[in-house]
Amino acid sequence: MNGNATEPVWHGAGRRIHMQEVGTRDGLQMEQAFVPTEDKIALVDALSDAGLAKIEVTAFVSPAAIPALRDAEIVMREIVRRPGVAYAALVPNVRGAERAIEARTDELNLVMSASETHNLANLRMTRAQSFASLAQVVATAQGAGVAVNVSLSCVFGCPMEGDVAEAEVFGWVQRFADLGVGGVTLCDTTGMAYPAQVAALVAAARARWPGMVFTLHFHNTRGMGLANVLAAIDAGADRFDASLGGLGGCPYAPGASGNVCSEEVVHALELMGYDTGVDLPALLAAARRLPALIGHDIPGQLAKAGRRLDLHPVPADFGAIRERAMAR
Amino acid sequence: MNGNATEPVWHGAGRRIHMQEVGTRDGLQMEQAFVPTEDKIALVDALSDAGLAKIEVTAFVSPAAIPALRDAEIVMREIVRRPGVAYAALVPNVRGAERAIEARTDELNLVMSASETHNLANLRMTRAQSFASLAQVVATAQGAGVAVNVSLSCVFGCPMEGDVAEAEVFGWVQRFADLGVGGVTLCDTTGMAYPAQVAALVAAARARWPGMVFTLHFHNTRGMGLANVLAAIDAGADRFDASLGGLGGCPYAPGASGNVCSEEVVHALELMGYDTGVDLPALLAAARRLPALIGHDIPGQLAKAGRRLDLHPVPADFGAIRERAMAR
Repeated sequence: MNGNATEPVWHGAGRRIHMQEVGTRDGLQMEQAFVPTEDKIALVDALSDAGLAKIEVTAFVSPAAIPALRDAEIVMREIVRRPGVAYAALVPNVRGAERAIEARTDELNLVMSASETHNLANLRMTRAQSFASLAQVVATAQGAGVAVNVSLSCVFGCPMEGDVAEAEVFGWVQRFADLGVGGVTLCDTTGMAYPAQVAALVAAARARWPGMVFTLHFHNTRGMGLANVLAAIDAGADRFDASLGGLGGCPYAPGASGNVCSEEVVHALELMGYDTGVDLPALLAAARRLPALIGHDIPGQLAKAGRRLDLHPVPADFGAIRERAMAR
Repeated sequence: MNGNATEPVWHGAGRRIHMQEVGTRDGLQMEQAFVPTEDKIALVDALSDAGLAKIEVTAFVSPAAIPALRDAEIVMREIVRRPGVAYAALVPNVRGAERAIEARTDELNLVMSASETHNLANLRMTRAQSFASLAQVVATAQGAGVAVNVSLSCVFGCPMEGDVAEAEVFGWVQRFADLGVGGVTLCDTTGMAYPAQVAALVAAARARWPGMVFTLHFHNTRGMGLANVLAAIDAGADRFDASLGGLGGCPYAPGASGNVCSEEVVHALELMGYDTGVDLPALLAAARRLPALIGHDIPGQLAKAGRRLDLHPVPADFGAIRERAMAR
């Protein structure tokens, strides 16, 4: 099952894993409070400095639809571009693509669902309508020489329909591959993926489209996020979306917790010997500033618990405890 | 690395995994509110009915030290004993062992730490003093023909000392093996374990003591709980402690979240084809009654999100959404 090494998945042995931050878009778009533009810019800059491979900075959508991201242009223009980091943005249509390209976005992220019901509920279009619209966006991007990634929602299950057949998922991947799209993100939008399923789907996708850059996007809704990341790595995946502090969720799956937590995935993978390229203390520092930015606690635990070797002091009365024990 | 099968760890292929509940002891002892005795009995009975392999029912400790469990005798005597389920209790000393044996406890669980600092801070004894005391408990249990398990804390790291050498851990396992103890639980008391470390330690322990029944006890403090369970299974482990709702924690590691969540581990393992013997709907029903019992929310997410195929209704206006889309 291991797609790219003889080492077991528990031992990274220096293998490179690309960490892609989605908290600034997938996370912040869910927040009730508007995060001030200068704070968003500072957050993206901090994430750049922490060494993430890609950052989904914002979304070029209607300000009326998602007021939380109404400052997309300013944020994308004013962030510091660090060489080697790809600055992406979600775009829903040609108008959004034009705005994103104008603001010098490196990569456009297009979204549709592998589930007809989820696509209708979330995007108010049939999948065929979404695909027709996104095909125009792809053409716009290609005309401007800007990279395109397509995020397919509900690849591992739809919260309303249930399981989504692999043939359905792969049918949409093929349609985008036929348009010349170079990257596809397989999204577990509401945390329905489980490791056996992930390993099988990733292996099959990589075998069928060896030239496609696949990203895996997991949620930790049912506690399987990191296990799914490891199952995907074992099947050869090396790019993962994650969200600072574990922000994010899905309005169509009440009770669902957020994306896998960036700092927790990096912490775990680095301990196992993978090379994420991420400066974990810098990432943790950014995560610890999040509650003040968004006005509430974050789902991620690592910002509270610290890294495994961030030690705690002994109890204040430890000397007395030891003396009493020794005197027995 | 896979200790017991040719199937990759992601595919359980019907392999048996024994789930051992510790929430009734490790969880409830941390709670501020006293859970009424009859509710504790009903909870243990519900866990028995759900098919758990072992339940750590309570602790026979000083009522002054842990008032939350001051009803140990009544609970242990009044639960319904289901054939095939082992009813265990923590005992700290000979007095506790005598009380537990008198109350017909199937198995005594003894606790000491592999870390000198943690043992002093938590038990107010040196490890040598703890061992000498527990050796008397082992003799008492053996005299009464009652099974003994030893839970070694901080096997994967101490929150005050840092890493604990494998030689230290194995030295204590050997001392208990020499006493004739048949079961040892390797405890990740504050969530410092990571998969590469787990796989290596479990493989080494099983190779050195092939006749010992090893249990793995993980906390989800840093989000690695389920990944550690899978790494342990890959190294041949088949017994896991877990806590209903993810209750529990450690007073010497502030910010630490609880044990791995019983219903989440069962949900994940059953999806992967393992045979846990657990009736997941019954376990989830018990987890969903916990907040009312303990007076606060539980860390586990599955009780809120539901199983992966517990589907959600479409939005109320879905028919209108589809009609409008189709009319385009």
